[in-house]
Amino acid sequence: MKYSFLQIIDALGIIAFSISGVFAALEKKLDLFGVFILAFVAAIGGGTIRDLILGDLPIPWLTNLTTVSLIAGSALITILFRRVIRNLHYTLLFFDSLGMGFFTIFGIQKRLYYELHPVMCVGIGTISACFGGVARDVILNNIPIIFRKEIYASACILGAALYFLLLQTNLHQEVADMICIAAISAIRLLAVKYDLRLPGLYRKEEL
Amino acid sequence: MKYSFLQIIDALGIIAFSISGVFAALEKKLDLFGVFILAFVAAIGGGTIRDLILGDLPIPWLTNLTTVSLIAGSALITILFRRVIRNLHYTLLFFDSLGMGFFTIFGIQKRLYYELHPVMCVGIGTISACFGGVARDVILNNIPIIFRKEIYASACILGAALYFLLLQTNLHQEVADMICIAAISAIRLLAVKYDLRLPGLYRKEEL
Amino acid sequence: MKYSFLQIIDALGIIAFSISGVFAALEKKLDLFGVFILAFVAAIGGGTIRDLILGDLPIPWLTNLTTVSLIAGSALITILFRRVIRNLHYTLLFFDSLGMGFFTIFGIQKRLYYELHPVMCVGIGTISACFGGVARDVILNNIPIIFRKEIYASACILGAALYFLLLQTNLHQEVADMICIAAISAIRLLAVKYDLRLPGLYRKEEL
Repeated sequence: MKYSFLQIIDALGIIAFSISGVFAALEKKLDLFGVFILAFVAAIGGGTIRDLILGDLPIPWLTNLTTVSLIAGSALITILFRRVIRNLHYTLLFFDSLGMGFFTIFGIQKRLYYELHPVMCVGIGTISACFGGVARDVILNNIPIIFRKEIYASACILGAALYFLLLQTNLHQEVADMICIAAISAIRLLAVKYDLRLPGLYRKEEL
Repeated sequence: MKYSFLQIIDALGIIAFSISGVFAALEKKLDLFGVFILAFVAAIGGGTIRDLILGDLPIPWLTNLTTVSLIAGSALITILFRRVIRNLHYTLLFFDSLGMGFFTIFGIQKRLYYELHPVMCVGIGTISACFGGVARDVILNNIPIIFRKEIYASACILGAALYFLLLQTNLHQEVADMICIAAISAIRLLAVKYDLRLPGLYRKEEL
Repeated sequence: MKYSFLQIIDALGIIAFSISGVFAALEKKLDLFGVFILAFVAAIGGGTIRDLILGDLPIPWLTNLTTVSLIAGSALITILFRRVIRNLHYTLLFFDSLGMGFFTIFGIQKRLYYELHPVMCVGIGTISACFGGVARDVILNNIPIIFRKEIYASACILGAALYFLLLQTNLHQEVADMICIAAISAIRLLAVKYDLRLPGLYRKEEL
């Protein structure tokens, strides 16, 4: 039960990230091939960087077709129905936030195996969740959006820290998983709804 | 015989890709060091990404000097004779297309060793052939050209698919190699000559 | 003694590279999270690429907190006191040059273990010293500065070549280390002071 619950969230996250890649590519008028590649980059970029620096090779998505099929299918459907899907703004944001939560916690769990320091695990979880978007933006010649809207990554960091706090208690790991995924998604959704930001770095006259 | 034939095509491909890197760098007025680095990035970028995600480490070009010498030599000659070489447009296109075919098939063969699914092998062959150009363009702040001219990657994908079809027959592998390299090169050359493109994604009013 | 001397230079280099990342990010008006990430990218980007292509995994900075703490601390202090630190231009340049020398020699030493050809070691040392800055500039949508001011990388290459010459003599390795770090730093500092460049590639009418 827990297994399939996490799998569903994982799939929803990959779908949401693929869709974000498709729309970013359409905006820059890339061709069909470019649009598919950007869907892949957005969906598996973060996890690939995580697995590369950890040495988990060959990269897991190479050895089965599930991830790749899911991304290709999402990209195809998004391209065909882009006028409809574009209007599902809040649905997409919801999946994207869930996916972000999932990737963060999944990244952390993978790290426990390597016996890393909790601070590093938080970092790696954040990298998994955020760097697909960074790679997508760099390839498309945009300055990565997560470096300018800080609540995105801050939500991952807060959720990841919460995870380690919860593990000190007697909670089952599955329950801690779900609480943290929910917390990360909620922080992200609230930040978007109320346009929350951390205190700015720049004085008015610097902008 | 077969071995040296493939080696020659490999060398021609590396030379053609290095030259493409040099010209892209000259266009952006990079200095001497920048021009050399871009030649390397264009020539070995795709293979490096392939080897990184497969875990074939240390990266093979680190352990012998042949590849590096070939790239450095091509870059130097291109810089010195750039006014002449720039006019060899069709010769370069020919080598570049051969190189593309070679990298695709070579990437696939390397993958058979890891027992990957044929679809993944096609993907990896395409990555080897295309991502040197992607890295070159991203570093130079251009949106990668292969994401906007789709016949480039489509030629790799078609050729790679043909390869797996041919392996089902009784053909010798060497013959299949050559047929596919020829097919990829021919598709590319014809696409450039007749300006072929896949059906567009955008309506006129979107452009 | 030697050990702690190299450690201090390493730390100074990481600090200088972090500071360069912070200022590059502030210039593009990144948010707090973006500024920290750019400090990390500038400080550990070159070493990470080196370790990836060599297969030294998991990447060493994942397994202890020293590097990460040093970068985070430097970034924080730089953000808080940026008006003061920006005026320390020459001090920063000095640390940056020392760091560059250190990363070059440290990169080479790491490579001796893999029994690579000296030419490859020079290349890897240069990659370690330069590609943090390349990654910083690519993410920020700038054409990498080291590809347009060639003395930067040329200093690494000269210093690295000197290192292999010195190893042929009877000098202690520690002495060779220090001489080369000093030479690289001095070439860089003199090049900046006297605005030295290699002979240009472009005719006036091409610029």
